[in-house]
Amino acid sequence: MSKVLIFGHQNPDTDAIGAAIAFAQLQKAMDVDAEAVALGTPSEETQFALDHFQLTAPRVITAVKPETSDVMLVDHNEFQQSVSDIAEVNILSVVDHHRIANFETANPLYYRAEPVGCTSTIIYKMYREMEAEITKEIAGIMLSAIISDTLLFKSPTCTPEDVNAAEKLAEIAEVDLESYGLAMLKAGTNLSDKSAEGLLDLDAKSFPMADKTVRIAQVNTVDLKEVFDRQSELEAAMKAESEEKGYDLFLLIATDILNSNSELLVTGEPVAKVETAFNTTLTNNRALLPGVVSRKKQVVPQLTAAFNN
Amino acid sequence: MSKVLIFGHQNPDTDAIGAAIAFAQLQKAMDVDAEAVALGTPSEETQFALDHFQLTAPRVITAVKPETSDVMLVDHNEFQQSVSDIAEVNILSVVDHHRIANFETANPLYYRAEPVGCTSTIIYKMYREMEAEITKEIAGIMLSAIISDTLLFKSPTCTPEDVNAAEKLAEIAEVDLESYGLAMLKAGTNLSDKSAEGLLDLDAKSFPMADKTVRIAQVNTVDLKEVFDRQSELEAAMKAESEEKGYDLFLLIATDILNSNSELLVTGEPVAKVETAFNTTLTNNRALLPGVVSRKKQVVPQLTAAFNN
Repeated sequence: MSKVLIFGHQNPDTDAIGAAIAFAQLQKAMDVDAEAVALGTPSEETQFALDHFQLTAPRVITAVKPETSDVMLVDHNEFQQSVSDIAEVNILSVVDHHRIANFETANPLYYRAEPVGCTSTIIYKMYREMEAEITKEIAGIMLSAIISDTLLFKSPTCTPEDVNAAEKLAEIAEVDLESYGLAMLKAGTNLSDKSAEGLLDLDAKSFPMADKTVRIAQVNTVDLKEVFDRQSELEAAMKAESEEKGYDLFLLIATDILNSNSELLVTGEPVAKVETAFNTTLTNNRALLPGVVSRKKQVVPQLTAAFNN
Repeated sequence: MSKVLIFGHQNPDTDAIGAAIAFAQLQKAMDVDAEAVALGTPSEETQFALDHFQLTAPRVITAVKPETSDVMLVDHNEFQQSVSDIAEVNILSVVDHHRIANFETANPLYYRAEPVGCTSTIIYKMYREMEAEITKEIAGIMLSAIISDTLLFKSPTCTPEDVNAAEKLAEIAEVDLESYGLAMLKAGTNLSDKSAEGLLDLDAKSFPMADKTVRIAQVNTVDLKEVFDRQSELEAAMKAESEEKGYDLFLLIATDILNSNSELLVTGEPVAKVETAFNTTLTNNRALLPGVVSRKKQVVPQLTAAFNN
């Protein structure tokens, strides 16, 4: 087997980077020549976690084929969220907690998906199953990923398995789960020094729905007003990016991590599908979504259903 | 959760039926209201295994929605190999050992794929991981599936994990692996009461290659002569089916399960690609392929390569 590159999705969040680091370590323990890489630089939240546990950010790649033909994917499977030449390389393994779509291989492979809150929760289980050692640093980055994906267990995507894994990992990582978790999440809510474009790109994914391409960006904040003070600037950037990249519909979900609500900002068409999906009416292109914090569980399926009806 | 139907692919083989029975039993042990069903009746080989372990053939279904909305798939994932209304139901879980293609879900799910020789090998591992009891009957049907998919470990798709699982299961099932295995495989080679059309349809798949459609049927036998005594009848049926369905090239692989060789019968064009693929010359439309037993590993890739050159 040639060298194996392991990476999460584009616009990596803490799980995309943390799961890649942890899974690469597990593969190395099984004598695979694996390297964790990333399809982008860490967010401030992720950098906070890396710094805390004295880990180095994975090298950023834009293509696989110049280096190797073998890859393993974590925290994603849809090709449009992956590396540019994913369709031309050999996918040996996938560990993920998302729906499966726009994914295809020529050969049989390892695929481990579970409907839990975080990929790192599954990787924690794999370490346990293989009786592999979890170092303090690896425990720390997996813990950070779980806190990030579950918003400190407040997301409806969070399962008892995520909570259990996080508690065990916090012990190994020697941190207080609550205080470390809140400090890490807050580190990711500093939006003031970011351009509108940068903010939209922090955690954004594209989804084909019917014959449209839908872009859904999400930002965490402790102050929704701070986000919407920049509404006109954000809308202009959403329209410009849609023009450039061919998105039909662009949703920005601003999530208040303290109160577990989100406010939506929408550009493009068809807006009617958004209103149907959330049973709401947009006012000034905005709508409050009480209790919504998860793009995966509370936004994508609802919007997909609206598009398919 | 509503009732869950668990099933393997169309034209079910022993793994498609055995894995469904075993996985349904495992789900029931976890208090899921699961029922193993099938997308077709058992082959004679499968019926031999069911009879030996006093199991009942799963009920045959043609659609899910009249009964429930929740399904789990074993031994397949491609929608065109599944139940007619698969795209309209909720797939909770998949256990499989094939490539992933033509598969999509709206929601996160359990997906467990490993590149081993048989789905039942993965399900055996899951029983172990969950520390669930494996009864004699369930051990027997999982063992039968592994013997069937690996041709008693002679197929190049067989891995050490398949051999290990089969040996453990044979102990629980209280059978001698070799003698039971050979008896079961032989039960599937009774071709004498089948029409030429029925024989060609036992285990056949179509493959697009370059701009041609290639049909590849496989039958197991303990007596190649018995098959080729019917050569003219088989050729006529292959030509008639090609005419009707638009196949350009039709290959029948008759596999001698005792000696692990196959003999090929070919109709249609381009015959030259077949000769290139297997580095042979057809005589009377036939060629012996020493050591060839696996369509997936020893026929399709070679023929694909010949068509692409």
